Amino acid sequence: MASVVEFKKLDGSISKPSLDSLMRLVRSDLDCVNSTILNHMQSPVHLIPQLAGHLIAAGGKRLRPMLTLGAAALCGYTGDRHIKLAACVEFIHTATLLHDDVVDESELRRGQETANTVWGNQASVLVGDFLFSRSFQLMVTDGSLHVLKILSDASAIIAEGEVQQLITTNDTTTSETAYLEVIQSKTAELFAAAARIGAVVADRPKKEEEALTSYGANLGIAFQLVDDALDYSARQAQLGKTVGDDFSEGKITLPVILAFRRGSEEDRKFWNRTLGELEQVDGDLEQAQQLILKYGALDDTISRAQHYAAIARDALGLFSDGEPKRVLTEVVDFCVEREF
Amino acid sequence: MASVVEFKKLDGSISKPSLDSLMRLVRSDLDCVNSTILNHMQSPVHLIPQLAGHLIAAGGKRLRPMLTLGAAALCGYTGDRHIKLAACVEFIHTATLLHDDVVDESELRRGQETANTVWGNQASVLVGDFLFSRSFQLMVTDGSLHVLKILSDASAIIAEGEVQQLITTNDTTTSETAYLEVIQSKTAELFAAAARIGAVVADRPKKEEEALTSYGANLGIAFQLVDDALDYSARQAQLGKTVGDDFSEGKITLPVILAFRRGSEEDRKFWNRTLGELEQVDGDLEQAQQLILKYGALDDTISRAQHYAAIARDALGLFSDGEPKRVLTEVVDFCVEREF
Repeated sequence: MASVVEFKKLDGSISKPSLDSLMRLVRSDLDCVNSTILNHMQSPVHLIPQLAGHLIAAGGKRLRPMLTLGAAALCGYTGDRHIKLAACVEFIHTATLLHDDVVDESELRRGQETANTVWGNQASVLVGDFLFSRSFQLMVTDGSLHVLKILSDASAIIAEGEVQQLITTNDTTTSETAYLEVIQSKTAELFAAAARIGAVVADRPKKEEEALTSYGANLGIAFQLVDDALDYSARQAQLGKTVGDDFSEGKITLPVILAFRRGSEEDRKFWNRTLGELEQVDGDLEQAQQLILKYGALDDTISRAQHYAAIARDALGLFSDGEPKRVLTEVVDFCVEREF
Repeated sequence: MASVVEFKKLDGSISKPSLDSLMRLVRSDLDCVNSTILNHMQSPVHLIPQLAGHLIAAGGKRLRPMLTLGAAALCGYTGDRHIKLAACVEFIHTATLLHDDVVDESELRRGQETANTVWGNQASVLVGDFLFSRSFQLMVTDGSLHVLKILSDASAIIAEGEVQQLITTNDTTTSETAYLEVIQSKTAELFAAAARIGAVVADRPKKEEEALTSYGANLGIAFQLVDDALDYSARQAQLGKTVGDDFSEGKITLPVILAFRRGSEEDRKFWNRTLGELEQVDGDLEQAQQLILKYGALDDTISRAQHYAAIARDALGLFSDGEPKRVLTEVVDFCVEREF
């Protein structure tokens, strides 16, 4: 895997890039976002806050809403619209996760049983629909058609990406281009929308809105590429993290695409059996990891991620220097250097 | 079942109420709605129009979008916003149906294999998400925050109703009040929104918007009550229509609620076994139908529907007489008198 970038802190010690700086920058806003989320996921139908709360409390990184908050800070925004809209972004993300777990038949997420495991697929589908609707209700109270357009466009594109991913599942001949289109839709689109909204609420010029869109989109691609690499990483396994989810679901991600294309006929038979036919036996994941290592597919997935990360960093170029810019740059570093 | 109201046509012949008059009133608009639906369900991801088209082409009654068109006609609207918004209403309805069929594990709808049977639950969930997002994208191009509020509120309430229905499934002690709340949310809310939008686009006074909301809501309740009655109707079975879907899924509808509450201890054991435990054997549906008949539960479900139908008719009272009002009144008659 690519070498780890280290930062020299003010006290002279070395630290790896993390989300801590972003967290510090937006902490009070994020508290407000969390309250908004809790308030607006309420319903007289108790199963709804119960199920939604299970996933929301499980403690995701809140990366997407934090991007909205960080971008608003970068744009010098002093109002409070970004709070509500960051909650909208997180609602859409949560709805997507609930439906994803049904689609993938996942049993675990963030180390906890998935909502569909606890309450069944039906409830997960319907509560996802509720959160999605709730997100649009919240946007309406904000009252900006521009934001409504950004997030309804993003939602449609995310759904397209998810369907496209479903189609390419088990298809070992999926091209890198087709894969990139999937992750641009299913992941990068919401990152882009989340960051862009920071410029929209601050009423910044179009070029700044575009710059933050590019920042979010490229960060999202890098984030997803690294996610896909980590799912085959031996280091992840050492850290006690789950690996092999994509493998067991037959998802075709870049490490596999590269290993398949660079591999021998025999290697391809292995991929076709394990991912194409989903006929897997003990030891297959380890063999998959070895093949991916052998053909440099993990390092090169990270290299590809670095390419998009570089674009994301440069997208911030036209903003003036300062804490928000430094922090949003560190987010990019974190996304490509993270080991968890 | 309640007696059938007959209409004397202009040529002196007798006809039962139908949707034909509504269809004639809005035919050219409906053609435009259908084109809008077809245009806007397109996607570079071919599975999306393929799957959505399967359900849309299966030919529902298009009752909800026709309500928008009919209400717009009643309000003397001469623009074209109602076309796009009627398509939005149908997209939301279609998304709901796709998710419903996954939740209910249905294999047939409108006499055809369901999308989830043909393409799997995963694709149905995701294409439903796409259509839902697409509906909001279309609303944004219309540009009315008022409409966006109406339909995002409706969508959230529909999801709440669906979750509540899921919770009451298999619960034979569900009260009539709880059941009514479910159908108000899952069915009446979209009928109400569909009709209301006719007044909104025509920019009519608030009292007319409220009148059409009441018309739609009460029509929706009557429609759903009759739907639930028809699922146990011997006449339906004679006509070769499917009956017993609710029974086989353990859904607790008004005919069952009434028969359960009016029944003997032995009857309740039957309902608890067949719907509570979902342990069903040959002949159970017939016995359920007999019990429902014995306790007058089918007739009384229709009587309850007539109550809401009467409110719906009176809600139209403040509009001036004419073809649209006559037609929308006939829609109410149709919804409670239909045998198919």
